[in-house]
Amino acid sequence: MRRFVIGQAKNLIDQTRRRHHKDHRFLSLLPSFSAASDSSTPFSSSRFFSSSSEMSASDSSLPVTLDSINPKVLKCEYAVRGEIVNIAQRLQEDLKTNKDAYPFDEIIYCNIGNPQSLGQQPITFFREVLALCSHTALLDESATHGLFSSDSIERAWKILDQIPGKATGAYSHSQGIKGLRDAIAAGIEARDGFPADPNDLFMTDGASPGVHMMMQLLITSEKDGILCPIPQYPLYSASIALHGGTLVPYYLDEASGWGLEISELKKQLEDARSKGVTVRALAVINPGNPTGQVLAEENQRDIVDFCKQEGLVLLADEVYQENVYVPDKKFHSFKKVARSMGYGEKDIALVSFQSVSKGYYGECGKRGGYMEVTGFTSDVREQIYKVASVNLCSNISGQILASLIMSPPKPGDDSYESYMAEKNGILSSLAKRAKTLEEALNKLEGVTCNRAEGAMYLFPCLNLPQKAIEAAEAEKTAPDAFYCKRLLKATGIVVVPGSGFRQVPGTWHFRCTILPQEDKIPAIVDRLTEFHKSFMDEFRN
Amino acid sequence: MRRFVIGQAKNLIDQTRRRHHKDHRFLSLLPSFSAASDSSTPFSSSRFFSSSSEMSASDSSLPVTLDSINPKVLKCEYAVRGEIVNIAQRLQEDLKTNKDAYPFDEIIYCNIGNPQSLGQQPITFFREVLALCSHTALLDESATHGLFSSDSIERAWKILDQIPGKATGAYSHSQGIKGLRDAIAAGIEARDGFPADPNDLFMTDGASPGVHMMMQLLITSEKDGILCPIPQYPLYSASIALHGGTLVPYYLDEASGWGLEISELKKQLEDARSKGVTVRALAVINPGNPTGQVLAEENQRDIVDFCKQEGLVLLADEVYQENVYVPDKKFHSFKKVARSMGYGEKDIALVSFQSVSKGYYGECGKRGGYMEVTGFTSDVREQIYKVASVNLCSNISGQILASLIMSPPKPGDDSYESYMAEKNGILSSLAKRAKTLEEALNKLEGVTCNRAEGAMYLFPCLNLPQKAIEAAEAEKTAPDAFYCKRLLKATGIVVVPGSGFRQVPGTWHFRCTILPQEDKIPAIVDRLTEFHKSFMDEFRN
Repeated sequence: MRRFVIGQAKNLIDQTRRRHHKDHRFLSLLPSFSAASDSSTPFSSSRFFSSSSEMSASDSSLPVTLDSINPKVLKCEYAVRGEIVNIAQRLQEDLKTNKDAYPFDEIIYCNIGNPQSLGQQPITFFREVLALCSHTALLDESATHGLFSSDSIERAWKILDQIPGKATGAYSHSQGIKGLRDAIAAGIEARDGFPADPNDLFMTDGASPGVHMMMQLLITSEKDGILCPIPQYPLYSASIALHGGTLVPYYLDEASGWGLEISELKKQLEDARSKGVTVRALAVINPGNPTGQVLAEENQRDIVDFCKQEGLVLLADEVYQENVYVPDKKFHSFKKVARSMGYGEKDIALVSFQSVSKGYYGECGKRGGYMEVTGFTSDVREQIYKVASVNLCSNISGQILASLIMSPPKPGDDSYESYMAEKNGILSSLAKRAKTLEEALNKLEGVTCNRAEGAMYLFPCLNLPQKAIEAAEAEKTAPDAFYCKRLLKATGIVVVPGSGFRQVPGTWHFRCTILPQEDKIPAIVDRLTEFHKSFMDEFRN
Repeated sequence: MRRFVIGQAKNLIDQTRRRHHKDHRFLSLLPSFSAASDSSTPFSSSRFFSSSSEMSASDSSLPVTLDSINPKVLKCEYAVRGEIVNIAQRLQEDLKTNKDAYPFDEIIYCNIGNPQSLGQQPITFFREVLALCSHTALLDESATHGLFSSDSIERAWKILDQIPGKATGAYSHSQGIKGLRDAIAAGIEARDGFPADPNDLFMTDGASPGVHMMMQLLITSEKDGILCPIPQYPLYSASIALHGGTLVPYYLDEASGWGLEISELKKQLEDARSKGVTVRALAVINPGNPTGQVLAEENQRDIVDFCKQEGLVLLADEVYQENVYVPDKKFHSFKKVARSMGYGEKDIALVSFQSVSKGYYGECGKRGGYMEVTGFTSDVREQIYKVASVNLCSNISGQILASLIMSPPKPGDDSYESYMAEKNGILSSLAKRAKTLEEALNKLEGVTCNRAEGAMYLFPCLNLPQKAIEAAEAEKTAPDAFYCKRLLKATGIVVVPGSGFRQVPGTWHFRCTILPQEDKIPAIVDRLTEFHKSFMDEFRN
């Protein structure tokens, strides 16, 4: 039975692959990534996407074809929702009617940092305030006091007072509601011990639109380069591709826990410059995604100095600032580090990205976030403001939530104790899950896994048998994608191949979130261990 | 006193203008709009933006300068939140402390279609459902039944059942939650009488990101052109500029109520082609923005045939579909028109944009919307899906709201009567306001104003005295911007100069929303009439 079952899943995957490969023109059209890119992704893991109203390229006289669309769009890749997730979605559909046909009863999505999709509960205080701001008539009802904490009611009033006409349904200022930006600036000041200016804040629908805005500003052509960590969260490679720039890779050192070496930055910068690329910015993800390391303050100082000396904008992805799990590490914002070195507005151009999607709140669906833009001249800032204005504003619920995460309940507030219990419960559980998964991964033959000091991911290295690599090549698939597809069909566990994040050529990894609820972790460890053993047995040289 | 007061406002405006002009490099850097663009905007009305942490271009050694940023960003303009709005915001700040210093006590923002900012109340049913979905714990409380309509509770449950794990805080499918897309597709079917496929829907944060996505897909270089109405909502010109394409203008015929002539489309298409531009798409805004006309079905058929014959994607901006105010006109979606002509998926490529920001709901701050993408091959659709995936998903509150506006309460539902009363109250009041303002404008010397058949705007034509034009030129300002600034400082009324939307060269207009609450309309009419008279007196030849 079990063999039949795995065969059925394999058929589904094979069908998918055939559909994916049927349009050869598609593959041949795909240009190589960029002059300065690494060459470790010979096979894309993100080129298959589901669609309805199926029309193949050949049976139509429609005006738009792959030949005629913007090649930058073709070039862009985003593996976090790529081929493997599409296969998983099909399996999930099939599971509904063929429950007995698979060796698992559910698909476990460990591909994406989406905590609430795996059962994490939202922070009650935040949701109370959002509900009151959504339906403000509740504030006039006495019954509301029985249903909501008193500080959520107070906070909702305070927020409404900051919105002209209390109109939560109106477009706001292009940078976001001023009163909410004041609250965020106060939160940044409390975090860093250095002033923050609400006029430096641009509120965004999650962090991604902010990253796109900066890429749009900085990239004119493929002659403009952005230094990005490898491995990297593929938003960066995707955004650079969409804007037609060049990703200048710098490799994190896996052996030293994904260390960021200044010598590597210098080497890659010089290499890019020698190829005629003007490097405009350095992107740093801290805590790291997919790599989970938390930078040491000393290291951050060197990075700041490097940017200052080399005239680079420092793009600091700090969305995991609340997600630090080890006692020997602490998050320091790059702005705090720069200011503590005595560098002000005129010394360094620095953009910090924050999001409501991560942290202990994990409010991905709300699409809230901001970027703090410092060290830009007024005329350039006016251009950023103008581009923000074209899209009018980010969504107000996301704006409210962004202000709440930066100014949560304080001691003495009605919600404070329950808020802290919820927050600490989530963070301590995430730390436990990270530890358990890390240990389990390190027990697997040929697998080494650095600890997740922060963020939401583990990024184990797979030392795959030569036979497995050859089998993958025969299927025109990257070896890590081959492994991940096998894992999916055997266990229902969805992870993302390392090639989607790029990696040192010839090394193979996958990214796995630490987000499944604690009670599911033992079964995940068992399934993973069993699968890995049988995979290694099958392909052992 | 009054003269002093106007003088004070004028000083503020002059300061602003000086700041705006201080960086001459900025102006000289600005390239002309595009090869095929009209030349009616010699002076930008959107090049001034406020910022804090003032650093001029000269006093800094920072890495990013106007010389080094993406010139496409410089080229982009967006007058709806341009210079005049910035002046208005400064006046509004000053009003707080200098209430007696101005001949008005408030700034009335008629620059933007932002109904709730001017006092329009949200539809209760929609907000009830949003609140329940924001804080789902409410659904378990018996007190909730006393606070919410029974159908809002039912609807919230139904929506939660459509979301995996009832997790409104999770990222959704990249196109939006499937169950919500089902509801929207059913709403489209009910509207059009033709099938709609939920897999054709891409939910977006308002309509703007959808427009950007299509521009990104279709535009590779300035050799790619998009036919756009002139006057147009400047999102189109801004998005084309940001993506480096060419805006191919087609002029709406003001004399025939902003008629859209096929002969004009053909002429401009051929003209663009003769210049080596490949025209990829035709953008149509129906009901029109800023022009307010509603297309006749016959006219729409001709447009569909034109796109089919010429191999153009039809980009249908249908965000004002609920805003029709005259009994002799009716909204027909372009998809309905195309399908009723017998054209299916394989005959015409059509994208329809919808938003929760407009209609009678006016929920601008929620940033909800969708695009219905039909007539694209599966491989091109996969590319659209991929780009949507890079940004993960649109915000879930906006997604929920988009589903609600396309499936509002039905007869028999608990909320139905109050919902209809709210909806009809808003729409009939908008119709009245449009009529009153239109009549008032037509009474002004040298002003002619077409009726607002739909949308939210009037776009009167100003026949300005030569002396006023010369005075504007002396101030290096477009004559309509000159008029609008004078209007602002004399009355506190904020409108957008026609040059921000483009117009037939040598003609001058402004766009004014019909959104101030009814009780404010008489005072607005009085102030406008008084101002216009004194302006004409001052500049009469």
